[in-house]
Parts: sequence; structure tokens; C-alpha cells
Amino acid sequence: MDNRAISQAVIARLPRYYRYLGDLKDSGIERISSQDLSKMMKVTASQIRQDFNNFGGFGQQGYGYNVEYLYDEIAKILGLNVRHNLVIIGAGNLGQALANYMNFERRGFIVRGIFDKNPALYGKQLRKVSVQPMENLRRFVADNDIDIAVLAIPKEAAVQTAETLVSCNIKAIWNFAHVDLNVPDNIVVENVHLSDSLMRLSYGIANM
Amino acid sequence: MDNRAISQAVIARLPRYYRYLGDLKDSGIERISSQDLSKMMKVTASQIRQDFNNFGGFGQQGYGYNVEYLYDEIAKILGLNVRHNLVIIGAGNLGQALANYMNFERRGFIVRGIFDKNPALYGKQLRKVSVQPMENLRRFVADNDIDIAVLAIPKEAAVQTAETLVSCNIKAIWNFAHVDLNVPDNIVVENVHLSDSLMRLSYGIANM
Repeated sequence: MDNRAISQAVIARLPRYYRYLGDLKDSGIERISSQDLSKMMKVTASQIRQDFNNFGGFGQQGYGYNVEYLYDEIAKILGLNVRHNLVIIGAGNLGQALANYMNFERRGFIVRGIFDKNPALYGKQLRKVSVQPMENLRRFVADNDIDIAVLAIPKEAAVQTAETLVSCNIKAIWNFAHVDLNVPDNIVVENVHLSDSLMRLSYGIANM
Repeated sequence: MDNRAISQAVIARLPRYYRYLGDLKDSGIERISSQDLSKMMKVTASQIRQDFNNFGGFGQQGYGYNVEYLYDEIAKILGLNVRHNLVIIGAGNLGQALANYMNFERRGFIVRGIFDKNPALYGKQLRKVSVQPMENLRRFVADNDIDIAVLAIPKEAAVQTAETLVSCNIKAIWNFAHVDLNVPDNIVVENVHLSDSLMRLSYGIANM
């Protein structure tokens, strides 16, 4: 199946479907109609059917969707059936929060290394992974089949570190720094700009 | 000015404009053309002009935009000229990371209280604010003019805590829990679903 023609808007909605289906699965529910899913998720049933039609439908008219099948298929589309090795750069509060978040591991994202420039943190254990000096980063990424780098460092350091990561052929950067990274098109960048999010919230309050 | 007719897509782009204009201002740049801003931000100049036209334009044809003026006007639209008191619920790694993030305070978001259900954390100081028991939350929100609650707790607790917050007339919830909250329409909810973000990144790798 060629997913490349699927719109970004549909892709952006898939994790939310996956989350709801996971909750249904955990509750022991085996089938769900697009109407019921629509009520739970507060999107129209027609939107759900259209979204799923992008991936071949998944359901039989009138029988509803098989929850587990749909959950597994969306996992495959999202690439969650493949394990990814990642490194976290920055062992401050945010880096530690991310390192300690068990759910990522459950989804196949395995923290292999954590790096910081602060010598006071070297050797500190976060879920059995020791914090290493930044100087080790390049070598570690090359030697340990690392796909993903998480940037939990300030913006100036992030720009420079992104260049290092590009030169070690990283596949993807999960960027928490408050800056847009300038990397080649073949590197996936997913930004989490917390300040931007807080400003949207502020806008919401101002215009409620 | 009535902002209510402005599309969500435009609103969602404002924090990014604000970030770039802040960087320009910090670099001492006084004026910028939509063409130059376009190159920096990698959006078309016509998109920039259209976006700004939603708010009355901000610029004089041929002279470019006055950076500081534009920065201040966007701040007003985003409600950043108003100070907001907030509480953080959950003093784990993520709650601590958010409590320690100085930039929020610089933008007028002041952490007034931090709450956790773990007695081992009671009294712990995070930037001069002590962690309190969850039982104090309701009273504290009512007595301290709290606008915003940050939910940095697991999803089951988040659903229940959101109900408490609704009953104390909170204005907005910044939700980091992996669940969609069901709150009345007059309460602003801004979600940061980190797992969803990581799944979009995974999709990007699978389809690169």
C-alpha cells in the first residue's frame, strides 16, 4: 500500500484513533460501529469512514469495525510494529521526564542512550541507562543503530546538535527546543513547541 | 477587534510568527519585509500578508513591517499582555520540568501552586513554590484567582481532576494526560499528547 498520497490531516488524526481503539481493546470491546466511535471521539461518522477508506476501509458495512484488527492495522500504518532505538539529548527535567515515560517503550521506542554536557549528570542512571558526555554522541549514534534523537536542550545547542545528528545519518528528530531546525528533507522532524501550545491556550482564554 | 471569525489555522500559526519576531527583536532588527520573513519561516510571502490582514495588516506596503510593533500586536492578540496565574497538578518529572521552565514566567504565566498526591513530595520547593496535597487544590484555585491548570498526571486521575477543576470555574486546562477531557465548551482545553506526536514521527520514518 502506498501511503504517500494520504493527506497530512488524515495522518495527524491516526494517533487519536489508535488511542481510542487501544482503550476499547483494553475494555474488552471487540466490535464498534462508526456511529459509536463517532460519539466517543466527537467527530462525524462520515469523517471516520472517509479516513479509514484511505487505508482500504477496515470494516464491513453493517457489522462495524473489528477493534483489534483495526488497532493492529493502524499500528502498522504508523510504523509501530517496528522497534526504534532512540537517544535523548539533554538530561534536565524534561529529558528525565521523557526517559522515565514507560509508555514509549511499550510502543517500541527504546531509550538506548542519554547525553548531557553537564559533568554532574554523567553516570546518573535513568531507567538503567547512564547519562553520557555529549562528546560520545556521534560515536554512539553510529555504533548503536539509533534512528531517533530527542532534543531536550535549549535552542542554541539544539541547532548545533541537529547538525551533528545529520552528519551521523539520524532518521528522525523529536524536537522540544523552541526553534525550527533546518535539516535535509530526508530527515523527519516532529516538533513539540510547548510555548506555542501555551500561547494557543492564552488566545483561547482571551477570546472565550 | 472581533477575532472570533479568524480561522483556527491562522491562530495556530500566530505563536510561530511571535517566536520569529521575538528572535528578530532580540537581534536588534527593526523592520522586515514579508519576503524576508517568508524566507526565514519557509512560508510564502502571500501567506504572511494574508495572515496579517486578518488583524488589520500591521504593515505599510513597501516599507516592511515594524518588528517591535508587530511583536507587541501579536502578543495582544494572543492575550500575552495579560498575566495568568496557574497551578501545576502532578509534581513528577514532567510537572517539575514545566514548573522549572523560566520562559513561561517571562510570558506572563505565573506558577502559583503545585499539587501531588504523593506525600513524599509535599513541601518540596520548585522555584519557590511548595508542592501541596491534592486535597488543597479546590480551595487554592478558588482563593488565588487561578486561570489555568496544567495536568501532568496519568489519564485516569486527569479525568477526575478535570471534573474538580470545572467545579471551581477554572478558565483553561493545559492537558498533558493521554486522554481527551470532556469539559463544558466555555473551558479552554489545549492538549499536548506526546505519544501522538511520537507516532506521527514514527509514521514519518515508515513512509520516508
